[in-house]
Formats: sequence, C-alpha cells, structure tokens
Amino acid sequence: MITSSQNSKIKRVRALLGRSKERREAGAFVTEGARLVEEAVISNWRLEIVLYDETLGERGKLQVEGLRSKGVDVEEVSTSVMKTVSETETPQGILAVVKNHQLPIANHPTFILIPDQIRDPGNLGTLLRSAAAAGVDAALIPPETTDAFAPKVLRSGMGAHFRLPIRSMGWDEIEKIISGMNVYAADMDGQPCWETDLRQPVALIIGSEAEGVSASGRRLASGKINIPMKGGTESLNAGAAGSVLMFEAARQRMVNGE
Amino acid sequence: MITSSQNSKIKRVRALLGRSKERREAGAFVTEGARLVEEAVISNWRLEIVLYDETLGERGKLQVEGLRSKGVDVEEVSTSVMKTVSETETPQGILAVVKNHQLPIANHPTFILIPDQIRDPGNLGTLLRSAAAAGVDAALIPPETTDAFAPKVLRSGMGAHFRLPIRSMGWDEIEKIISGMNVYAADMDGQPCWETDLRQPVALIIGSEAEGVSASGRRLASGKINIPMKGGTESLNAGAAGSVLMFEAARQRMVNGE
Repeated sequence: MITSSQNSKIKRVRALLGRSKERREAGAFVTEGARLVEEAVISNWRLEIVLYDETLGERGKLQVEGLRSKGVDVEEVSTSVMKTVSETETPQGILAVVKNHQLPIANHPTFILIPDQIRDPGNLGTLLRSAAAAGVDAALIPPETTDAFAPKVLRSGMGAHFRLPIRSMGWDEIEKIISGMNVYAADMDGQPCWETDLRQPVALIIGSEAEGVSASGRRLASGKINIPMKGGTESLNAGAAGSVLMFEAARQRMVNGE
Repeated sequence: MITSSQNSKIKRVRALLGRSKERREAGAFVTEGARLVEEAVISNWRLEIVLYDETLGERGKLQVEGLRSKGVDVEEVSTSVMKTVSETETPQGILAVVKNHQLPIANHPTFILIPDQIRDPGNLGTLLRSAAAAGVDAALIPPETTDAFAPKVLRSGMGAHFRLPIRSMGWDEIEKIISGMNVYAADMDGQPCWETDLRQPVALIIGSEAEGVSASGRRLASGKINIPMKGGTESLNAGAAGSVLMFEAARQRMVNGE
C-alpha cells in the first residue's frame, strides 16, 4: 500500500492531473471514478496505473482484481494519499492513468465538431458528451480551446472521450480535414438552423459565450447558423447551444435519411 | 463607505446569499455583476440595496449613480468587505439585493418547464436560460429541485430570472397549472422527440442525470419522450438534454405555425 504522497507514481498522477503539457508529452491522462475507469476498460484503452483506496465499493474492488489479473499495475493507496491526487471534493476511491489512444477518424467524415475558444472545462465536456450522442465523427480541438483531457473535461464528458475521436491540432490541420465540407459557425446573425440543410457533410464551429467564434474559425466558415430565440435572450450556454445544433443535424439526418 | 463585514447590510447580503430559507422568508435574493444588475433594472425589478467597490468599471459607476438618483439605497464598500459577500472567485465590483417579483404566468400557458430533482445549480441555470430563449411560459420548480434563486443558478441563468416566470411550488399546485396539457417526462425509454407533436400545450419534465424524473413527476406525465442517441451513450447533461427538447418544441411551433 502506498502511504506517501511523495511516491513516484503519486507524483506522476499529480503531474498528469495538473498540467496539459505533461499530458501531451506523456501521451496519457488521468480518469477518476469507477464508472469512467470501467468505460476505459470496455473501450479497450490501455491503463498504465490504477490507484484505489479502501473507500472503493464492492463492484469497484472486483473490477480492480480483474485488472490486476490482466497485468495492469494496480496499487492500493491510503485514503489520505488518495485525497492528494483527487480533483473532486469527494474522491471516488479509484483512478487510472490511461494511455492516450487516437481513435481513428473516418476517411470521409460527415459530421465534425470544432469547439472554438471554449475555456470552461464543464462546457467542453458537455459538448463532447453531446457530440458522441449525436453521431459526430470527430471533435477537432483548436489551440485556443482548453485541453480536452483535463480532469474536469473528462468528468463532464462522462465517457465520451473513450468513444469519440478527439484531436488537438492547429487550424491548418483542421482546414485539411474539413475541406469540402459545409462549415458553419454558430452565430447570432446566422441563418436559422432549422432552415439550414445539415444532412450534407458538415463541420460545426461552436464559439465561447464571451468571445464567440475566433477569427481563425470565421475564416474557415462557409456560413453562419443560429438558433432562433425569443424575447431579449442574447445567447445560450455554449454547451447547450452546441447540443441543440448537433441534435438538429442528427434530427435532419434521421428524419430525412442520411 | 462600509468597511466592516459586521455591518448589518453586509450581514443581510451574506444571509440571503447563503440560505434559501432566508431568501424565501425575505422574498428577496442577491444578484452579482454589472450585467445582471442591469438586467434587473431594465426588467423593472425593485432593488433594495446596491453594494459596489472601487473595482467597478466606468459603465457600472454611471449605473450606480443613476440608481442612487432614483432613490435606491446604494453603498460603497471596501474591497475586502466586497470579498466577504461575493460568491465568485473574482468579485465583479457590484451586487444588488433584489426584491422577488412574481412575473405573471399566462392564463392559458402553452409551454411549461418542470426541472425535476435538479440539484446542480449550473444545470438549473442553464435550463432556465434556455427556457427563456425557447419561449417557455413558466418554469415550475418542485420541492426536490435546488432553489432557483441561489447565487450559482442566477449566475448561469444569465438574466433569465428577470424575464421568465419562475415559481417554487408543491406537486399539487403544479398539477393544477398543467392540467389539460400534454405532460412529457424526458426518459431514455420514451418516444423520439422528433416524432412527438410538441405544438399542443405541453409541460416538459426534465429529471436529473443521476436520478431521472421523480415518482411525483412520473405520476403527472401522460407520456415519455427521449432524444435518440448513437452508440453507447446513456444520457446527456441535464441542461443540454432539456435545451435540446425545449428547442425541438420551439422548432415545431415556428416551422409549423403555433
């Protein structure tokens, strides 16, 4: 049992939790809680280290034994050490260092999400979660957006990270992937999403509430779409707005045939 | 200038910020930041007290002088006192105690939102913000849901509170208001929202992610609707799911005529 917060594995987890640079260089991230660890396992992501403490429930303990028998590095830690590596107020008794695994992007994607200048990790996680549910092929994360593998993004993504291809890249690279697609920036001054044909291959750029879509994003957009709103409301929460737009595309594709 | 955190007005603000019971008994709540204070003023809500400190910007200071000349109790406080009454990490230099004002509910409402067992204030605020934008007539808040006038709900509501009738009430009273409407509970096992006619008078019950719709909510529902999802995704963020459903109703009403 690890009882020192200075243990090298504990230090590694803390570094991966705290810094996106560390995550990028290591090609790994930390996921917390039995549910997300289970999602990682089911989706065949490689676990480098699993840490748990005595507060872990029965189901979690069975899971941990299963992982140990498969050769995963599983360590019990003291509850006080667990607190030093938990991002949540009430630690969930288990976390894993997961090797980042690039899910392949379809050769001819028909639905791309670009969360642009989204700094709030909860909003980014909500967008990724909705994207996975709406049938998005990949989320392309430009440099101005917060790191998609930060702990809070993973938490609000609720497992989307293990099913949806998510790639951080520059705008040049984004431009290559979405070339030939209809590229729409979400914008108050856009055409109503309900009157826009979203059945063709489409890339949706969702900007932040404070700053909207960036200059780089606007440059790539072939058009602007909005969600028609009533009386005095300027905008929606970015996670909500992106979800409405993604499911409008899903609706059109399902109702009218893809 | 108020320089003591023991000043009676400061104590009152702290009490209103911290406790829903206090807010209920006083029929008042606290709203923070120049934008929300401005929304309250524009919407003709009565301000009981306005506190500001020297960090307030030029526009805010003009606003404050305007309020003082209209007879509002405006007090400058020291920056350290402001910190003791601010709910945010970076205080915004101004807050107001606002007298709660029951916006009237239409006699024959056609669109009601019922956020059920929503404990996360950010999600509740997102739902209220989307509701105001989607043309909801009123949000009815059952007892199991967090207080809609808590600071974090106000913050993520972004002004919806001043435009949308919001009422806390028991399920008996909710039942009376929605009688005769189609009442749908959001539920994974429901019929696809895109195949449900939402143009008729409708009440939408949105449950929490962890617990879904309550037994009381299910009892009132005449049907269940869901958002069709792809591959392995169990659910959406409650704020996102509610937003998708409310704007699907708005779409049907706008596209097909109300």
